[in-house]
Amino acid sequence: MKTILGLDIGGTKILGVLYDLDGKELAREKKKTKANEGLEVVMSQIYKVIDALKSFEDAQILAIGAGVPGIVDDNGTVAFSPNIPFRDFTLGKKLSERYEVPVYVGNDVNVAMYGEYKHLDSRASKHVLGIFIGTGVGGAIIIDGKLYTGQGSAGEFGHMVVSADGAYCGCGAQGCLEAYASKTAIQKYILKQLTKGRKSMFSDLLEEDGAVLKSSSIRKAYDAHDELAKEVVDRLARYMGIAVGSLVNLYHPEMMIIGGGITEALGDLLLEKIISESRQHAMPGLMETVNFTVSELADEAGVFGAYQLAQNML
Amino acid sequence: MKTILGLDIGGTKILGVLYDLDGKELAREKKKTKANEGLEVVMSQIYKVIDALKSFEDAQILAIGAGVPGIVDDNGTVAFSPNIPFRDFTLGKKLSERYEVPVYVGNDVNVAMYGEYKHLDSRASKHVLGIFIGTGVGGAIIIDGKLYTGQGSAGEFGHMVVSADGAYCGCGAQGCLEAYASKTAIQKYILKQLTKGRKSMFSDLLEEDGAVLKSSSIRKAYDAHDELAKEVVDRLARYMGIAVGSLVNLYHPEMMIIGGGITEALGDLLLEKIISESRQHAMPGLMETVNFTVSELADEAGVFGAYQLAQNML
Repeated sequence: MKTILGLDIGGTKILGVLYDLDGKELAREKKKTKANEGLEVVMSQIYKVIDALKSFEDAQILAIGAGVPGIVDDNGTVAFSPNIPFRDFTLGKKLSERYEVPVYVGNDVNVAMYGEYKHLDSRASKHVLGIFIGTGVGGAIIIDGKLYTGQGSAGEFGHMVVSADGAYCGCGAQGCLEAYASKTAIQKYILKQLTKGRKSMFSDLLEEDGAVLKSSSIRKAYDAHDELAKEVVDRLARYMGIAVGSLVNLYHPEMMIIGGGITEALGDLLLEKIISESRQHAMPGLMETVNFTVSELADEAGVFGAYQLAQNML
Repeated sequence: MKTILGLDIGGTKILGVLYDLDGKELAREKKKTKANEGLEVVMSQIYKVIDALKSFEDAQILAIGAGVPGIVDDNGTVAFSPNIPFRDFTLGKKLSERYEVPVYVGNDVNVAMYGEYKHLDSRASKHVLGIFIGTGVGGAIIIDGKLYTGQGSAGEFGHMVVSADGAYCGCGAQGCLEAYASKTAIQKYILKQLTKGRKSMFSDLLEEDGAVLKSSSIRKAYDAHDELAKEVVDRLARYMGIAVGSLVNLYHPEMMIIGGGITEALGDLLLEKIISESRQHAMPGLMETVNFTVSELADEAGVFGAYQLAQNML
């Protein structure tokens, strides 16, 4: 049977899904990345995932797609990954030689948002932006139906300045969107407010969730009319709205997909607030021409986008 | 002789240039736009320019290109122009029917920056951004060697937010780049400083120049070590640098062209300052991969871009 393999290579786990040529899932396999055990161990974990799926019935793999955190060039070389020991590593070439099939490797957020695009609406819209709120803030640019990466790093929406002289960002710069709208920035803001002595459900929720606040906890506190939760959501919408309004002026796309765990947990409630703030910044008449939607695939977006990008190579 | 006609339709004048198929200028014609006399007068002025050039020797016009201030869609319909009485006006169709040739109509800044791109480096670079400092701040996006306009209005770099809660912009929004880096914003800043009682050459220069300060006057004051001029140039470079750094993160282009009268008057002196500020905002490693250059064609960019875009239709 002719199949295509999608891989989502993350900092903690590797997910592989085998699809038939119509995009139907046939099998899946998950392994730990073991990133701290070095490059060779990581590669052997990737091979194990692929080999397990290859043995599925009479699967003949025609192409492989993969998303990886970090900077990836057009040839599938990973210049740098923040979580995995890839440094100028020719991942695409390695996989292609080993399995003798065409291989697509892209940045994980690019690949996942491309998956959302293909899932949501790839026929009606050709110019689409995806913006993703995770630990950081990332994005993807789709132009004429194709993923645009410029010289490799395009779509870093988290690192557009929204506030000159503003908050410091993990990248070293000042005023980046990511310093306001990432999960990391949100948690930092909540902790600061709690330290100041503000009363909020987040005290208990943070204890329950452990080191990292869950997206669902933000929703829970918001639904319980927690005042700090309302402030956090409004603040997130504010800065996201500034960015989204600017992006509408920059790209005038047909559709914008807002993705990530927090977005999916808050859904239309957050989307409406973001749209409302964007109207303050988009040029007259433009907002009405753009469709806004929340992502739907959650953790499945990566493998599905990888499958789609692999299929494009055939 | 086979020719192509480029038109630059401005708020005060219409410039037409006739080119041969190798881009050599054969003849030019200029008329007042007479925008305040209404649509029919404007159209008759445009026809006069074209007809005058059409009568050049044995010119056979194969295609017409035109740049117009305002919002233009893919079909050459001008949705709105701030200076000319075009409202949902099918300019492209009108010209195409009258002269029986293919006609390209685009936004004036888009068209001019495309002209700069073709003039400067259209072979080496495929992904290029042009950012233009004029009365406002505009831009153009070139992807895969083609002008990208999204749904019509892409490239409005003047209306990306650089400062949340910042200065009010003519568009109604707050914190737009245009509110800091346009000629209008610069003149406003200078007037405010003079009103505060600051001593500067700009007092005399403004009187000499009349209502609008000339770009050459900014250069003159800067070269004379005028303190306010230095401040104005540094402030311009600061906000342009924030925008340019963000744009590098968003598009990761191969080249960025900084254009407009002020840019051409200040040249590399301004460009170096902008690049230096951009480094504070672009992600690590990206600035080194982008070529920065100042525009070169000045007022000729519009007709030349129009010619190039018309030629693409053949």
